[in-house]
Amino acid sequence: MFSFEDIYSAADRIKNVIHVTPVMTSSYIDSLCDMKVYFKCEHLQKTGSFKARGALNAIKIIVSDPENKSSSVITHSSGNFGQALAWAAKIHNIPCVVVAPNNAPISKLNAMRDYGANVVLCEPKDREMVCNNLRDTGLHTEMVDPFDDYRVMAGQGTIAIEFLEQIPDLDALLVAVGGGGLCSGIVIAAKKIKPTIKVYCVEPEGKNLQHSLDSSVRSWDPDAGPVKTIADGIRVLRIGKKCFPPIFEKCERKVLTVNDNEIIQAMKLIYSRMKQAIEPTGAVSLAALIKYKNELSDQNLKNIGVIFCGGNIDLQRLSSFF
Amino acid sequence: MFSFEDIYSAADRIKNVIHVTPVMTSSYIDSLCDMKVYFKCEHLQKTGSFKARGALNAIKIIVSDPENKSSSVITHSSGNFGQALAWAAKIHNIPCVVVAPNNAPISKLNAMRDYGANVVLCEPKDREMVCNNLRDTGLHTEMVDPFDDYRVMAGQGTIAIEFLEQIPDLDALLVAVGGGGLCSGIVIAAKKIKPTIKVYCVEPEGKNLQHSLDSSVRSWDPDAGPVKTIADGIRVLRIGKKCFPPIFEKCERKVLTVNDNEIIQAMKLIYSRMKQAIEPTGAVSLAALIKYKNELSDQNLKNIGVIFCGGNIDLQRLSSFF
Repeated sequence: MFSFEDIYSAADRIKNVIHVTPVMTSSYIDSLCDMKVYFKCEHLQKTGSFKARGALNAIKIIVSDPENKSSSVITHSSGNFGQALAWAAKIHNIPCVVVAPNNAPISKLNAMRDYGANVVLCEPKDREMVCNNLRDTGLHTEMVDPFDDYRVMAGQGTIAIEFLEQIPDLDALLVAVGGGGLCSGIVIAAKKIKPTIKVYCVEPEGKNLQHSLDSSVRSWDPDAGPVKTIADGIRVLRIGKKCFPPIFEKCERKVLTVNDNEIIQAMKLIYSRMKQAIEPTGAVSLAALIKYKNELSDQNLKNIGVIFCGGNIDLQRLSSFF
Repeated sequence: MFSFEDIYSAADRIKNVIHVTPVMTSSYIDSLCDMKVYFKCEHLQKTGSFKARGALNAIKIIVSDPENKSSSVITHSSGNFGQALAWAAKIHNIPCVVVAPNNAPISKLNAMRDYGANVVLCEPKDREMVCNNLRDTGLHTEMVDPFDDYRVMAGQGTIAIEFLEQIPDLDALLVAVGGGGLCSGIVIAAKKIKPTIKVYCVEPEGKNLQHSLDSSVRSWDPDAGPVKTIADGIRVLRIGKKCFPPIFEKCERKVLTVNDNEIIQAMKLIYSRMKQAIEPTGAVSLAALIKYKNELSDQNLKNIGVIFCGGNIDLQRLSSFF
């Protein structure tokens, strides 16, 4: 269904448009963690997050398939994927609709519109339903899921190819998990390139991914709402059906869990020491590294890869964090 | 007294310690200004500002001179130079005293202490006097002026060598001016390497550098206090005596002047579009570029170099800007 070859093809498909993002380091954070920490700067990616990779891969697959009659795309997103799909669709002159929860950050909604998307607001819990209804009414409208879509997962996985080319010595990757599109793509690519690498899922408190991994099935309440966390990029509670198997099979079984205060402390470090303006979700992996550094060190992990996954933040919100 | 050779020597002297900072671009800002804009990331320099270059050059000259009996250094600074000198002194195991105004940003005072400096607070207007008094009482204590010091000016000038190696096509540089240490070093180096390049001084409203350049002498009231601006790195009203001649002789005669609101608008762009956490002074040159872009364009300037001079900010202060 989905393999490393898809990720490798995605990398080739998107390479002329996507930035090869830099890797940063901080001697202060290295000494704080007593490890070498490498930060992959996907907040400097097109549209301000890694989501540009998966969105562009999906759009390029759609437009290059002569059998595909789709003349527009639709997705649901609280922010970064909506921006990314709108951007990728605009490049290819395809209309794009984004169904967004009415509590999404204003800067993200504005950015979607700036990229030309038609943004439809709805109650947070209804976004998938509204999206499906709209798709059913649109002739030749193709759904691109923000995470549970092999084309998207493959695009996100290209980060691992690039990161391991830049830093072959990585012993482990810490990946923030919402719907699981990023983590599933990364773990397939990283384990193929370097079988000894460990990929850890990092979640916000309240997600309880550990329970699903321990029971080997997606065991979330289908009626439960999103996770309450400042990390708006990973508020989605349930990992997608397509994303779950690779995460279950290949990621470390131990899930790393962080709370809002730990995320804010990591944000402060990143702003003050690394001078990088990331969104809360971008600080989640560093928060986990700081919290679990002794356990990771006990595993003899020395070179840790962390992903600054996004930098799209309402500047007015910063005052509530600092 | 002071020439390109000093800057060239400084570059060699500090190269193993100082970061070669990256140059960033933003397609959004390029289209906004209708020019190619190159941002030299000195906020990613050691200690979070370009001041590390000049401070390290001064310390290395002091410790390598067998005739020099100095066993400690002293300076006055509201922030970045104090941090930089404390850092450079610590590397060489030399005690460092920083006289700082009692309204300096707390994060900068803390950072000076973290680097081991003895910080002496005083009234803002008294900092030079307090510094001179303390120096007179300290046997073998050497003053390193934060800008009006050839060793410091030479260190800051190394930015121009590096920037022109990275982007040889630069047509102009926009440099924020406080005491003039950065601008005087840069203009000497840049004009030597590329005589056709134009170097513009950018000042906060209230400095009135234009009057001094037009009258060819430093014509500030010696009793006047610092400039009222959010750009705390360039609050110093008067350009130093040593810094003035090269700026007068080699910089463009037209001074670019920006106010607090223009600085804040530029900061917002840098945070939201470039995801870089800079301090207000770091946004001054972009503010000027946006304000004066038509005039600069009329001069046929296409490739503009801007310096992100520092990134040391009290995070709590961000809410007052955004």
